[in-house]
Amino acid sequence: MASHGFWSLGAENGGESGGQSPARAWCQAAAQKFTGGIGSKLCALLNVGEVDKSADGAEKRDAENCSCSTKPCNCSKTNLGFSELYSTDLLPALDGDLKTMTFLQEVVDILLAYIVESFDRSTKVIDFHYPNELLQRNNWELSDEPETLDDILISCRATLKYAIKTAHPRYFNQLSTGLDMVGLAADWLTSTANTNMFTYEVAPVFVLLEYVTLKKMREIIGWEDGRGDGIFSPGGAISNMYAMLLARYKMFPEVKEKGMSSVPKLAAFTSEHSHFSIKKGAAALGIGTESVICIKADERGKLIPSDLERRIVEAKQKGLVPFFVSATAGTTVYGAFDPLIAISDICKKYNIWMHVDGAWGGSLLMSRKHRWKLNGVERANSMTWNPHKMMAVPLQCSALLVREEGLMQSCNQMQACYLFQQDKQYDLSYDTGDKALQCGRHVDIFKLWLMWRAKGTIGFEAQIDKCLDLSEYLYNKIKDREGYMMVFDGKPQHTNVCFWYLPPSVRYLEDKVEKMKRLHKVAPTIKARMMEYGTTMVSYQPQGDKVNFFRMVISNPAATFEDIDFLIEEIERLGQDL
Amino acid sequence: MASHGFWSLGAENGGESGGQSPARAWCQAAAQKFTGGIGSKLCALLNVGEVDKSADGAEKRDAENCSCSTKPCNCSKTNLGFSELYSTDLLPALDGDLKTMTFLQEVVDILLAYIVESFDRSTKVIDFHYPNELLQRNNWELSDEPETLDDILISCRATLKYAIKTAHPRYFNQLSTGLDMVGLAADWLTSTANTNMFTYEVAPVFVLLEYVTLKKMREIIGWEDGRGDGIFSPGGAISNMYAMLLARYKMFPEVKEKGMSSVPKLAAFTSEHSHFSIKKGAAALGIGTESVICIKADERGKLIPSDLERRIVEAKQKGLVPFFVSATAGTTVYGAFDPLIAISDICKKYNIWMHVDGAWGGSLLMSRKHRWKLNGVERANSMTWNPHKMMAVPLQCSALLVREEGLMQSCNQMQACYLFQQDKQYDLSYDTGDKALQCGRHVDIFKLWLMWRAKGTIGFEAQIDKCLDLSEYLYNKIKDREGYMMVFDGKPQHTNVCFWYLPPSVRYLEDKVEKMKRLHKVAPTIKARMMEYGTTMVSYQPQGDKVNFFRMVISNPAATFEDIDFLIEEIERLGQDL
Repeated sequence: MASHGFWSLGAENGGESGGQSPARAWCQAAAQKFTGGIGSKLCALLNVGEVDKSADGAEKRDAENCSCSTKPCNCSKTNLGFSELYSTDLLPALDGDLKTMTFLQEVVDILLAYIVESFDRSTKVIDFHYPNELLQRNNWELSDEPETLDDILISCRATLKYAIKTAHPRYFNQLSTGLDMVGLAADWLTSTANTNMFTYEVAPVFVLLEYVTLKKMREIIGWEDGRGDGIFSPGGAISNMYAMLLARYKMFPEVKEKGMSSVPKLAAFTSEHSHFSIKKGAAALGIGTESVICIKADERGKLIPSDLERRIVEAKQKGLVPFFVSATAGTTVYGAFDPLIAISDICKKYNIWMHVDGAWGGSLLMSRKHRWKLNGVERANSMTWNPHKMMAVPLQCSALLVREEGLMQSCNQMQACYLFQQDKQYDLSYDTGDKALQCGRHVDIFKLWLMWRAKGTIGFEAQIDKCLDLSEYLYNKIKDREGYMMVFDGKPQHTNVCFWYLPPSVRYLEDKVEKMKRLHKVAPTIKARMMEYGTTMVSYQPQGDKVNFFRMVISNPAATFEDIDFLIEEIERLGQDL
Repeated sequence: MASHGFWSLGAENGGESGGQSPARAWCQAAAQKFTGGIGSKLCALLNVGEVDKSADGAEKRDAENCSCSTKPCNCSKTNLGFSELYSTDLLPALDGDLKTMTFLQEVVDILLAYIVESFDRSTKVIDFHYPNELLQRNNWELSDEPETLDDILISCRATLKYAIKTAHPRYFNQLSTGLDMVGLAADWLTSTANTNMFTYEVAPVFVLLEYVTLKKMREIIGWEDGRGDGIFSPGGAISNMYAMLLARYKMFPEVKEKGMSSVPKLAAFTSEHSHFSIKKGAAALGIGTESVICIKADERGKLIPSDLERRIVEAKQKGLVPFFVSATAGTTVYGAFDPLIAISDICKKYNIWMHVDGAWGGSLLMSRKHRWKLNGVERANSMTWNPHKMMAVPLQCSALLVREEGLMQSCNQMQACYLFQQDKQYDLSYDTGDKALQCGRHVDIFKLWLMWRAKGTIGFEAQIDKCLDLSEYLYNKIKDREGYMMVFDGKPQHTNVCFWYLPPSVRYLEDKVEKMKRLHKVAPTIKARMMEYGTTMVSYQPQGDKVNFFRMVISNPAATFEDIDFLIEEIERLGQDL
């Protein structure tokens, strides 16, 4: 069983030699550092733990999480007395500081082991179980009575045992993959600070860092002096919704008070390959999905500007008011970049808000080699850019950038006097909460800011360029390889490589209908096998009249050329008998 | 300078005695546990660190973060070589595992010190600086070049130095206060797992835990067998917006495709004391803020049912279609509970969706002593309930609960085939992402679930009851005390205690206009002084024709009777000369 990491090494080793657990060593070292009585208290705690060893608790842990052969085992970690302790023994309990540090350190040991293991190619990406089976493999129920801290540690281990290792170098399933160590450290700090973005008063540093970072992002977009506005929102779908909301308000400010009944029938435009959040936003905002007009894309998935213009004219003739065009920089499936300059010309001509959904592709602005793909973005009115995708910032981290200053505030503010008091002692322009759709807002900025400090812009650039190199390598490797068919011709613009794998039995079928019918089932079957073996994960889907194909995407900074080779071998190994 | 915690203790102590840092001890212990060459590599890393000590890095750190008297100091932590290392030396770098563990452990040491310090009443709640001053006290800028890991650690310390200590027992500023140790551990684990809630495929355990927890919450509301639906959303404002969206869709399902132009003019109803997110939601959804009809509240802040019915009838007479009533369980300022049974009778009579905004007060359902205040909630169609407020779950954790099954799915689904493939190998009912407004969704469930396991329902109950006891203590203490005036009479229903403090010079003023004018400035001035001294934080605001008053709320599990006594003494100390 590969999924125990150095926790099990500890057990196997420490059980025999009486070796010290990292948590215990940490406590002892910390004890030495404390002046006065606290140090001796820490030592006392450790001793109590040894006396109070509970065979019961140990048994329970072993059954689920410990791989050593002696039962009941005497792994050093069972000695810490957590089977006698409850959450009420931790801070703010009197004298809870030592128990708290020991407990949190124990959790950290579990996490560190999980992290090291996640990057190890010999471990599984996933230990997959069907939902009903997983429900039964552990007690996940909530009850009236508390559990011991030992049980809590067991729950932590069980949760990680069945989790996807998103840091694994062969995890390619989503647009957000990988785990950045500085980003993770920043997220741990964010959790510890446990505050809210609505005012400077309660989040002074984070509010300033959001200000600094948004300005930097606007400079990179190319807006003069980095001027404009923006916000970090809970994901690209909400960022896109913000943009649509702003576009509507800009054209018809009365909509805020009077609603859509005061406004003519609107029309929004986006390519048929765009993200579903554009329609979802239109549904939510009372615009309606039918008002989202899907523009034809070319065979590479790029919006066709002439079709956009044709549909705008058509909409106007029908009495609709075109108010919003969402161009996509990096479509979800093909990774296509819409032609932003041509689109911006049309938007200018017809006086329509131009939004760029760069949730996936926006990060290419960080690369001097690839940023030309977004040429024209500086003409947009707003842009969605998710650092949690191609920049591998931990989830969630999505920005909406807006060119016009002040618009978000007037669009969204409600001036609640209990939160945004006007007679505070500091400069109120830092109380940014009232321009948000949310009231409380999670601190998503620190991860991005700290990673940016650690990497510099050139570090992000290198990371992004490497992913694009890997995808080009994959493309070159399979484009003429027997048994493969590309979904579209030519080198991908982003890291999306879309392809079919045709097992030998399908490859030479002459009946085209039968061939497509069989091919449609290949990717789902290979994917299911990948998950059962736990070796890798990659996504698939149909698109239009195209049957199921693989969509490989690379945003995982841990991936290498060898991992791409492995992926191909694995697809062939799992699919050749189909 | 009280803000260094045991980090500075370490410096003062360890500098002299050559004492070992916790991180170093941890590494050495971990090194012993590893079989094979990894252990010796870890030792080698530690040795390299000692050789590569950089006086430069040490200087820099000292200036900002170290309080020892010898410069350049020889604190043990400067020996780890981080001034020579960059983020690119961490995982996924080859042989990055040891450096990664050491770095993350170093961060954890900083966090543990911060946590212990945060609960210490002798430290400041906040080391306040004005925005421009704070911008200059540190270099917060982002640059092209990377910084060393030593610099990153410095940034972490600086960020925490100027952060609000939300765990501090005397932090009362918001509805979300305190820091739960099991919740924090769970949030660290969540960050480490770094996944997304959209499908079972990528978040198998978290999706199941959300299922289990939402069911439990619905049982507690009183819905038969815990049936219904729900979702964790990014905050109460979005949860309320979901409810309004569902109510509209339930009455007019065509709105999804056709927008508000297919729907008659709607009317929503909520009390004048309700949260601003109801109006914000109406603005966003294209309903318009004017369609939100504010119902009168009594002197305690509770919605008056007869006024609700009157306004519903009036709206209907004007041709509006009443579709949504949002009752509040625990208003933001007064902590009032609207009379839910009477409201539900009216909603039933006029066939209107009844929502309960229990963002703040919903958690009282966990208390057998206080849950009667929500009697009638079981008749609601939907309920917002934020465990990140009164249950002190780390931010963010907000649930929307919905009585009707399937409605969220049909209201919000867009069936994107690249995410919600219909031919996967497992039971697709666990792919809950398509019922969300978001696409990606942060994992907010694990904190709540793990805390619930650790405390049991009775643990949450005890925590909530204690906060209410504290607030009753405060009320009893000041209601007849000289210099205080209550904003409303009678024992508060929630932990909100609203009061004026009248300094002697204001107390006996006979000119009423002048008295109110002066009184209006008292709370802001005392608050500003609290922040400058850093001793405590409590909110204030005006309401209607009432001048600025303090709104004390208690959700902080660390607070005690002595902290309430302290608050009163502090208000008098800081305000008596005004």
